[in-house]
Amino acid sequence: MSRKEFRELSDPETAREAIASLDLRADDETAELASARGRVLSERVDATMDVPGFDRASVDGYALRARDTFGADEADPVRLTVVGEVHAGAEPAVEIGEGEAAEISTGAVVPPGADAVVMVERTDPDPDHDAVLVRTSLAPGDRIMFAGADIGAGERAVGPGTLLTSREIGLLSALGVDEVPVRGKPAVGIISTGDELVRPGERLRSEAGEIYDVNSYTTATAVEEAGGTPRLYPHAGDDYDAMESLLREAAEDCDLVLSSGSTSASAVDVIYRVIDEQGELLLHGVSVKPGKPMLVGRLDGSAYVGLPGYPVSALTIFRTFVAPAIRDAAGVPEPETATVDGAMAVRERYSEGRLRYMPVGLTTDVDGRTLVYPVDKGSGATTSLVEADGVVAVPPDVEYLEKGEEVEVTLFSPDIRPPTLFGAGEDDPAVSRLLDRIDRPRYLSSGSRQGLRRLRDGVTDVAIVTGDATLEDTTPIGEWSREWGLIVPQGNPDEVAGVADLVDRDLRFVNRTADSGLRATFEGVLDVVADDRDVERHEIAGSIEGFERSVRGHESPARNVLDGRADVGLGLRTTADTLGMGFVPCGDERVRALASDDRIEKPGVRAFAAAIDDGEALFDTLTGYRVEKA
Amino acid sequence: MSRKEFRELSDPETAREAIASLDLRADDETAELASARGRVLSERVDATMDVPGFDRASVDGYALRARDTFGADEADPVRLTVVGEVHAGAEPAVEIGEGEAAEISTGAVVPPGADAVVMVERTDPDPDHDAVLVRTSLAPGDRIMFAGADIGAGERAVGPGTLLTSREIGLLSALGVDEVPVRGKPAVGIISTGDELVRPGERLRSEAGEIYDVNSYTTATAVEEAGGTPRLYPHAGDDYDAMESLLREAAEDCDLVLSSGSTSASAVDVIYRVIDEQGELLLHGVSVKPGKPMLVGRLDGSAYVGLPGYPVSALTIFRTFVAPAIRDAAGVPEPETATVDGAMAVRERYSEGRLRYMPVGLTTDVDGRTLVYPVDKGSGATTSLVEADGVVAVPPDVEYLEKGEEVEVTLFSPDIRPPTLFGAGEDDPAVSRLLDRIDRPRYLSSGSRQGLRRLRDGVTDVAIVTGDATLEDTTPIGEWSREWGLIVPQGNPDEVAGVADLVDRDLRFVNRTADSGLRATFEGVLDVVADDRDVERHEIAGSIEGFERSVRGHESPARNVLDGRADVGLGLRTTADTLGMGFVPCGDERVRALASDDRIEKPGVRAFAAAIDDGEALFDTLTGYRVEKA
Repeated sequence: MSRKEFRELSDPETAREAIASLDLRADDETAELASARGRVLSERVDATMDVPGFDRASVDGYALRARDTFGADEADPVRLTVVGEVHAGAEPAVEIGEGEAAEISTGAVVPPGADAVVMVERTDPDPDHDAVLVRTSLAPGDRIMFAGADIGAGERAVGPGTLLTSREIGLLSALGVDEVPVRGKPAVGIISTGDELVRPGERLRSEAGEIYDVNSYTTATAVEEAGGTPRLYPHAGDDYDAMESLLREAAEDCDLVLSSGSTSASAVDVIYRVIDEQGELLLHGVSVKPGKPMLVGRLDGSAYVGLPGYPVSALTIFRTFVAPAIRDAAGVPEPETATVDGAMAVRERYSEGRLRYMPVGLTTDVDGRTLVYPVDKGSGATTSLVEADGVVAVPPDVEYLEKGEEVEVTLFSPDIRPPTLFGAGEDDPAVSRLLDRIDRPRYLSSGSRQGLRRLRDGVTDVAIVTGDATLEDTTPIGEWSREWGLIVPQGNPDEVAGVADLVDRDLRFVNRTADSGLRATFEGVLDVVADDRDVERHEIAGSIEGFERSVRGHESPARNVLDGRADVGLGLRTTADTLGMGFVPCGDERVRALASDDRIEKPGVRAFAAAIDDGEALFDTLTGYRVEKA
Repeated sequence: MSRKEFRELSDPETAREAIASLDLRADDETAELASARGRVLSERVDATMDVPGFDRASVDGYALRARDTFGADEADPVRLTVVGEVHAGAEPAVEIGEGEAAEISTGAVVPPGADAVVMVERTDPDPDHDAVLVRTSLAPGDRIMFAGADIGAGERAVGPGTLLTSREIGLLSALGVDEVPVRGKPAVGIISTGDELVRPGERLRSEAGEIYDVNSYTTATAVEEAGGTPRLYPHAGDDYDAMESLLREAAEDCDLVLSSGSTSASAVDVIYRVIDEQGELLLHGVSVKPGKPMLVGRLDGSAYVGLPGYPVSALTIFRTFVAPAIRDAAGVPEPETATVDGAMAVRERYSEGRLRYMPVGLTTDVDGRTLVYPVDKGSGATTSLVEADGVVAVPPDVEYLEKGEEVEVTLFSPDIRPPTLFGAGEDDPAVSRLLDRIDRPRYLSSGSRQGLRRLRDGVTDVAIVTGDATLEDTTPIGEWSREWGLIVPQGNPDEVAGVADLVDRDLRFVNRTADSGLRATFEGVLDVVADDRDVERHEIAGSIEGFERSVRGHESPARNVLDGRADVGLGLRTTADTLGMGFVPCGDERVRALASDDRIEKPGVRAFAAAIDDGEALFDTLTGYRVEKA
């Protein structure tokens, strides 16, 4: 394998200029008015007609000659002969002479001879039915909207660069316009590199190291959000010729080509060489975190930008450098809500000496003030995607962000808002269901231990923990128990009877990770076994094949058993029942929700406590669960 | 015609409750992940797999047994035999024994036997090519992302009610999900009533009082903005049976039916009777301005709301009462930018004693503070649509809003922002083109006289005026002249020689409205003719057939001539040239841009002044124009 080191990093301003120098604009096009919402007008549209095109009655009433009503009032009405009717949308068949009137509908053409309209409310029908009594005096022009009074021919109606919303579409339809000239949406090709990537919905071979393609879909959606039209191209491997032909195909079709998906240096290197040798490489690596692997160039008249491989990094670079260029080319303004201000919830240290776009999550304190905390410290985890609400630009010379310091967050999407409830802790199916009853909750299934740590740090509102763990300045807001044990294939073919069998027999076990409360409970049982046998726990653990094979999700061990990769998995009765598997019970485990005392009045926390309180029916749907009433 | 009076108006809260009692929810549906942006999840999606599904190398380097590197450092590397390569997306074909290593790519499966990965940067290839020197000590698990470390099977991934943006779509794709359960978009049928309405793009017969349908398109777009799917139905007349069958057809297809379009009481009355007799009428008329004609009811299991006929009123009632209900049914949250605060730019008096949703426009002062001014005081004009940025709710007991008073504006669309430049005055094609160079300008072609009045009121930034009009506390920021005269059919078939011919001969003339500066200039010439003949001007004017036939747009008179409805129109040389018509020159008219002294430093005003200064090329495209350099 040939490997490429990234050197001579460009500064961020140079990167921005390089991207600004690319021409991402699509050709202007014509859009049907009915589907033009959200498009941007490419040319001014002037009125080519008067609106209305005729003198129009503004009320239901009678068209008449104003001078005939001179001196009329409630006490002394004037009597006019009704010579006909004029309906909206019909050419008047009458002409109004002296002492005459015609019944007229709102919107109808004022008939020849008439110069005013009286509201029906100021008239009375004459009993003999061919006349009307008018109880008011009128001036010429009363209750008439004259031709062109709304829009005059030649008037500027809507200017170039206007984002078309309901009201502009309304005005354009008044002008009879059914097609409008609009800015084309930049076509953005997305090439996902890496042999390991599989499209969602297709079968995944985990044993061959396959994973689902995340960046292509994230980027495609972000392209749409920025006003472009994404096109996904098939995955490319690391072969030079195949990559060249794919890049050329995408460059041919698109205004901008993005590559995204692989964290593999070799795949990035192949692209680098194709752009460098077949096109024009403008820059290679930017001195921002996370911008090292960023590439900017041109190929066959199309622009090219290579994004980092980690999902949050790819979204950060896209949002910071690429989205503004796409918006600019599409003529779409940056949304007003693209940034929010907030206070750092924790102290954050950083001293790499280059500009950092720090991915952050948002939350709120009890008064609704926005708090900001760092996420995805280089883990590359996909779950960070939904925790990362935006980025804070931290200048190279800033070594610390103090707790409480005000920062500006550039949001990943303008629709993003802080969660109403922020919790972390045990992965528990009851919690998943309780959260369904809360508007916009955020929950990190990080295990009981991490849940407590985050609660202590003052970032989260609640922790879900197993056992009797306590923490100062917190209050339990709910409690339940769940039955746990060993999950085995349906019918328990190995006739597993309990934990001792794991120690004594040749069974492949799957454990939960060390942060999991369930694992702690399991280890408690091992301690009892060790005591009984008068040996150390680590000896007992060492005799269990797979004791160190630890997985994170509450269903993960069971799914390993289901796939035949293990014989026994640590888990909950409800999981065994849900997946139709066998279950060997080991005990009941206590689970509690702890809330920070200074967040206990936060509306989301109160809603969560109420959801637990009212949750009996919910807990009944989970076998092995029991609510503990306070 | 039978006429229905609106009585017993409901209060706004009752109207809101009536609409809330309607069931607008569409059935949940399944959306492809790739096109699920902006949709709202209807059910929780849990992970059904571990991500990654295998122990994954986090870096490019070598997979090895950590214990083999014990004690290794830069000075004293350990030498391991390279027994193979593992690529991302391939099943490892090697197993790592003691003293062995395998080259590995980021994202590849850690091969059996290995328990750590060393970064390539901390190694050197051994010269004989089948070994590697490792220059650091490793612990088990280093640079490995264990199976399920990102997402564990059974974990809650995305909750119900979540609006899907790029990041949620990224996480769902990591789980291999290619279809998601989403809330259905409420189907909203739009029935436009009124025989006079014609669809944009179709031929309009103005002589029969036809106008283009504005409300259907405005409402349809507003429905989309609120998260619904609009369906336009063909226009219905005032016939009971036809209306009933159309309403039933729409009710069958849709979750909500809106009627909109007609200001005609008779059309509204037919709908009222159909809903009342065939369905269920919940309320009829709301005591808000503008809510009198509002209807709420049910028909055949669908909800029904009738909107007022004036475009701005229809949008106001839609935005205030209907959009929240559609958003709620669609599960889409109200955008954050849906309201803005601002200060009243003028004093506004109102004393009708009912809640008023006052349509307002936004502008800004020199410091960028938001100013709010009332628009569309019941005029029903379509042009008000683009001037109305939102509504201010004025309680029934408020008689005055003072100038400078703070008000909250509910925007018609979250994308709406105040114009950068706000001008009013003469309708002039040069101004239209100059405005094209400004980002988001607003200009009202209200004529010179109204332009000056608005500038004096302190609402607008600039006025475009003809002649020598001046105003205190304003400064001219640009000046040009335009050639004006009489526009006649091509070839001047009537051999019109000048203004005297209008007086002396039998020619049908079309004038501009009294607010137009061009009309004032024309009247100045009539004064000269009157002086010459030693008569009063009104005698001269009275001899011109069509002197009072005044139209608003600068092209309107010419288009009347073009249509054969007149022989001579008042207008500009450039208009005659653009429309390929004949022109009888009468003189040059001075046009000036005046700016308020307290807005002259506003960025939009400076940009406009600069556009005039740089506008020579632009003025050259307009025949008869000449820039006056300061």
